[in-house]
Amino acid sequence: MTEAEKIKAFIKENIERYKFSGVVIGISGGIDSAVVGKLLVDAIGNDKVFGLILPERDSAKETVKDAKLVCEFLKINYKIKNISRILRSMGVYSLKPPALIFPRSVQERYAQNVWLAEDKPYIQDLQNRGNKSFRESLAYYRAKPRIRSVIFYFYAEQLGYAVAGCTNKTEALTGFYVKWGDEICDIEPISHLYKTQVYELAEILKIPQKIINKKPSPDIAPGITDEFALGISYEEIDRILIKIEKGEDLSGEKQESIGKIKEVLANKKLREIKCLHL
Amino acid sequence: MTEAEKIKAFIKENIERYKFSGVVIGISGGIDSAVVGKLLVDAIGNDKVFGLILPERDSAKETVKDAKLVCEFLKINYKIKNISRILRSMGVYSLKPPALIFPRSVQERYAQNVWLAEDKPYIQDLQNRGNKSFRESLAYYRAKPRIRSVIFYFYAEQLGYAVAGCTNKTEALTGFYVKWGDEICDIEPISHLYKTQVYELAEILKIPQKIINKKPSPDIAPGITDEFALGISYEEIDRILIKIEKGEDLSGEKQESIGKIKEVLANKKLREIKCLHL
Repeated sequence: MTEAEKIKAFIKENIERYKFSGVVIGISGGIDSAVVGKLLVDAIGNDKVFGLILPERDSAKETVKDAKLVCEFLKINYKIKNISRILRSMGVYSLKPPALIFPRSVQERYAQNVWLAEDKPYIQDLQNRGNKSFRESLAYYRAKPRIRSVIFYFYAEQLGYAVAGCTNKTEALTGFYVKWGDEICDIEPISHLYKTQVYELAEILKIPQKIINKKPSPDIAPGITDEFALGISYEEIDRILIKIEKGEDLSGEKQESIGKIKEVLANKKLREIKCLHL
Repeated sequence: MTEAEKIKAFIKENIERYKFSGVVIGISGGIDSAVVGKLLVDAIGNDKVFGLILPERDSAKETVKDAKLVCEFLKINYKIKNISRILRSMGVYSLKPPALIFPRSVQERYAQNVWLAEDKPYIQDLQNRGNKSFRESLAYYRAKPRIRSVIFYFYAEQLGYAVAGCTNKTEALTGFYVKWGDEICDIEPISHLYKTQVYELAEILKIPQKIINKKPSPDIAPGITDEFALGISYEEIDRILIKIEKGEDLSGEKQESIGKIKEVLANKKLREIKCLHL
């Protein structure tokens, strides 16, 4: 059985077991949701998969176009809903300067500077630390995937559908996801695959090259790509994570990168604690 | 050590261990959040507890008044924010007739009729089943605690605070909570206590009698109290749940009630499945 076949069987089996009528998936225009979308469609049929494209003020200008490309590639029904009004009503945007009046390049520099103003920003992020402006940035970006998840369920429960998650193993291990946000779902078809394995699967599944070639980004703040936030490339992260997982020799790897990753692994406890109880 | 002391030690220990600067709690005006609020205040001090009162269109008219009473009893800082605009932007309210033009009693009858139109509505709810109108009602009410949780984290993360949950053991066992909604928190101080035990603790903690005497209600749809939705009183539910837990003889209990509760326990799987993965 190929990896794709294994995942498709897993999807089909669980959708049937729990009697879901179909699956809702958020389509971001990125590779992970494209791969999960294709696996869903192949497993249960394109008529049982519903895509949601939920852009907001800070989304990259290609987001909707790329997400539509994915939905059309998948041949699924989908809905585009801009969630800026919801975020504005929550008070999210008022934490940051108004975006519209600044060109994108200025917005990108602004967000990158907030991030880089902290020493080890990703470690601070993992621990909900940092100065007030930094903590406001955390609250700012995390509200977005959380609101999206609430909307996924809002549609899914009307339809009797499940919600699919798109978290991969690299993100899960490094804490590179929003607690109670991206991870909120009924089924996680690719959470056992490293990001580099998701790329391999994308080629096999013939995901459009435009999507495969995009720079991975959480698309929650201008100019913040995955690799910018993590400070290491996925290739390097995965190579080191896999060696750590298998207990293999790390001597071929850069000391600095090993140190960074070990620090991430040691500091992600806060991302994982949930509903502590007596 | 009394129960209250045990819980306070548990709270203090975990807030310190994970270096949270304080705790955010949603204050609903009901007994559970009042009890959790008091335990938090006694454990870490009223200056480190922040209350959020988040009413919406369908909230009972006493909700804000009672919630303020609790915050004043606790002597905590709090913020009242009406979330109707957020829910409206999501499309939640458009699933149901406009509320404003109908008197509350008509709204209550409407919501109760939607609920009662299904055979065994609570079992249908646990399984995300029922006809279209019923499923829309599920999506309608569930969006509310979910949005509230997103807002709790929005404030908590700006402050470096934890989020406290208020789920009790009766709710946890019977699935009487919103998946990815009420349960979203860092710490659950009363999830090991049956509802009837929460009442006992409330007396010990000297929670205002007005709050103790209120009919328990999720306050998410007009006229839907806990006992209306569950179809059985908390006293009876807890008595039976405790006997089942302890393996005690159930012969003193009504067959119909035992049957109902066993059916609930057998059908709550969907509430519990999360992030199924390979």
